[in-house]
Amino acid sequence: MLSTVLSPSASSLWSPISGGITAPEGFQAAGIHAGLKQSQRADLALLLAPSGAVCAGTFTQSLTRAACVDLCIERLHDSGFRARAVLINSGQANACTGDRGRIDSLRVTSLLSDHLGLSVDEVLICSTGVIGVPIPMDKLLVSLGPLVEELNHEGGSSAAKAIMTTDLVDKQIALKADLGGRCVRLGGMAKGSGMIHPNMGTMLAYLSCDAGIPVDVWREMIKRVVDNSFNLISVDGDTSTNDSLLAFSAGQSLDSKYWPILEDGLLLLSQYLSKAIVRDGEGANCLLEVQVEGAKSFNDAKLIARTVSSSLLVKTALHGCDPNWGRIVAAVGRSGISFRLSELSIWLGPYQLMHGGEPLKFDYDAASNYMKERFQGAYLVDDSVCIRLKVGDGFGSSFAWGCDLSDEYVRINADYTT
Amino acid sequence: MLSTVLSPSASSLWSPISGGITAPEGFQAAGIHAGLKQSQRADLALLLAPSGAVCAGTFTQSLTRAACVDLCIERLHDSGFRARAVLINSGQANACTGDRGRIDSLRVTSLLSDHLGLSVDEVLICSTGVIGVPIPMDKLLVSLGPLVEELNHEGGSSAAKAIMTTDLVDKQIALKADLGGRCVRLGGMAKGSGMIHPNMGTMLAYLSCDAGIPVDVWREMIKRVVDNSFNLISVDGDTSTNDSLLAFSAGQSLDSKYWPILEDGLLLLSQYLSKAIVRDGEGANCLLEVQVEGAKSFNDAKLIARTVSSSLLVKTALHGCDPNWGRIVAAVGRSGISFRLSELSIWLGPYQLMHGGEPLKFDYDAASNYMKERFQGAYLVDDSVCIRLKVGDGFGSSFAWGCDLSDEYVRINADYTT
Repeated sequence: MLSTVLSPSASSLWSPISGGITAPEGFQAAGIHAGLKQSQRADLALLLAPSGAVCAGTFTQSLTRAACVDLCIERLHDSGFRARAVLINSGQANACTGDRGRIDSLRVTSLLSDHLGLSVDEVLICSTGVIGVPIPMDKLLVSLGPLVEELNHEGGSSAAKAIMTTDLVDKQIALKADLGGRCVRLGGMAKGSGMIHPNMGTMLAYLSCDAGIPVDVWREMIKRVVDNSFNLISVDGDTSTNDSLLAFSAGQSLDSKYWPILEDGLLLLSQYLSKAIVRDGEGANCLLEVQVEGAKSFNDAKLIARTVSSSLLVKTALHGCDPNWGRIVAAVGRSGISFRLSELSIWLGPYQLMHGGEPLKFDYDAASNYMKERFQGAYLVDDSVCIRLKVGDGFGSSFAWGCDLSDEYVRINADYTT
Repeated sequence: MLSTVLSPSASSLWSPISGGITAPEGFQAAGIHAGLKQSQRADLALLLAPSGAVCAGTFTQSLTRAACVDLCIERLHDSGFRARAVLINSGQANACTGDRGRIDSLRVTSLLSDHLGLSVDEVLICSTGVIGVPIPMDKLLVSLGPLVEELNHEGGSSAAKAIMTTDLVDKQIALKADLGGRCVRLGGMAKGSGMIHPNMGTMLAYLSCDAGIPVDVWREMIKRVVDNSFNLISVDGDTSTNDSLLAFSAGQSLDSKYWPILEDGLLLLSQYLSKAIVRDGEGANCLLEVQVEGAKSFNDAKLIARTVSSSLLVKTALHGCDPNWGRIVAAVGRSGISFRLSELSIWLGPYQLMHGGEPLKFDYDAASNYMKERFQGAYLVDDSVCIRLKVGDGFGSSFAWGCDLSDEYVRINADYTT
């Protein structure tokens, strides 16, 4: 059901299950309406990992990151990556709120650690919403008790809904695999949907795993997974101040011979959530997958793929279902990566548009229809518009995901204060 | 009448005159309808510099640049930067047309050099229009004779019109100054209006000057001028395959003590044309000027200014007249340039929005009105929406120009094959 470019074979070992972030054994979550947003939607979530959990995090590289991001980074280091709980409020990003941002984050995590009976270093906070707006602390503090009360082993879906801002759908997934006679479960949830061009994690994603992995191995694994999933997507080229991914591993140790399979599962899960964020990108109607092969390195291929997938002219051509290879070539040409034009070949789905730098005749209407059919596609099926680029004979390959740029995107962002 | 951030004092020495690119003594131009475009608009231009001219050029850094760009670069070097004539066709970019692109460019310049009685190395060609489409050579070749017939000393305006593609208005300017009792004239013309994010020259700009400047001095001067004008603008973040700027200097030598004043004039002229391109950017309603000061270097300041001016979220906020400083802060934070958030201050026109990293209370409606008033402003008056950023105590300052992102931009580019 899930598709991935990197490791298609792995998908056979992992199968989808329900439960989202709380599918792995021992994980609890909750989501409630705390009145932080104007609307009546849920706006406060809590995730609690079982005792003994290790936690890896990746965060925005933005220099104007929110105080809660700093706090997460500090506490993960101070606790030796042993965090247990994360509180997530939506509505206010609490970024660029001066000293108050940090003071509020310290205050709420301190009170929450009392409620949970944890050391304060084990409690993290992530915020999402409007930049520059502090969290209404009166409402937040009185909601902690009820939120903790709500914690349960089937709370994944409530939590996934409570972290949404402009998202139209919640984004969650869980997978299981039999590893040496033992059922291992992975869970994940994430949110978008604007200011998406992650340079580390993405605007709030959470992973859970009920197999115990040594902390250093877990951190390396998560870094590789994020580089091949969340760090390859773009909705609008704008990196957020609050991007954070937290991944918890807790449970009986897993034999190291299964680690590569576990990493495949994490990758599947993360690529699913990454694509779900792009599909639900502001004003987006269509998922674009740009595959690049034959580059000198993974990084070269990645930069080409990301340049094409975030080009405004490619994105508007996609919106118009126009197989406009000239704009693709222009984007490749300005990516900053060296290659020979005479070695450039381009495919749009099954249609080859260019070979060795020379344009080919192709059926324009059929190629346009290929794009049209993929608009508003259902989840979990391969409905992406695929642009494949061969740029040489190197071994570097990568891909990136983007979406069309619509007038709806402009309307959303001309009218909405982020 | 003209405004510039870099050298406001210079504007007093230079005053606008009519005549565009042919205002300087000895320059001739022409623009005709050769039937290259479907429409009845002019689509072929010729510029002829007087004998003894030197020519400096800056070109796109794109690796998928058009064959005509390669030819310009080769001929400038082969002739010792002594080009005299440039042919400009609009309608077809003649980029990525394989071997044919180069063969056609060689053929037409060879025939044109016969018409003009020049060495073929002195004749250049620039193309603009749809990528991947070759020029209709039958129509082009028979038009060369009539085009040369049309050449005249008042042809600047005809040429400026003939190089337009999706431009709504032609872009030309001329200036004069009295330098040591001698009248020196500068002329310029340019075109936009999509795929504008120059990384060298911009999508076709031409400068003329009737004072003789040594070729090496002229080339350095033009490089500095382009770095402070055309290379600071962005409409959509996409660098074109055909960006070219050619600048001709011809006439009696100018005393070196006047060179700095001449460079000021060239900068005024180039900044005027650069802003005109952005104002006429596809779907654009408003000119955005981002000023950055206090950075560690010019390049740091420039990168911050360009990141903010090309951010989709800043551009849509501008379109919605929303003084959304959070998006400005987010763009500064992801620019890749290091600075302290505690030293960041932001102004929108006369309104200060942030001081030392702390948001300030400001009159939202008044700030929004400041933006609204600047929509659809007239040329040659200071109608830009100005975002000023202080990022520290360094001596690096720069600026960049952009425009709003409108649903009209999406419609133009979803429906049009570039």
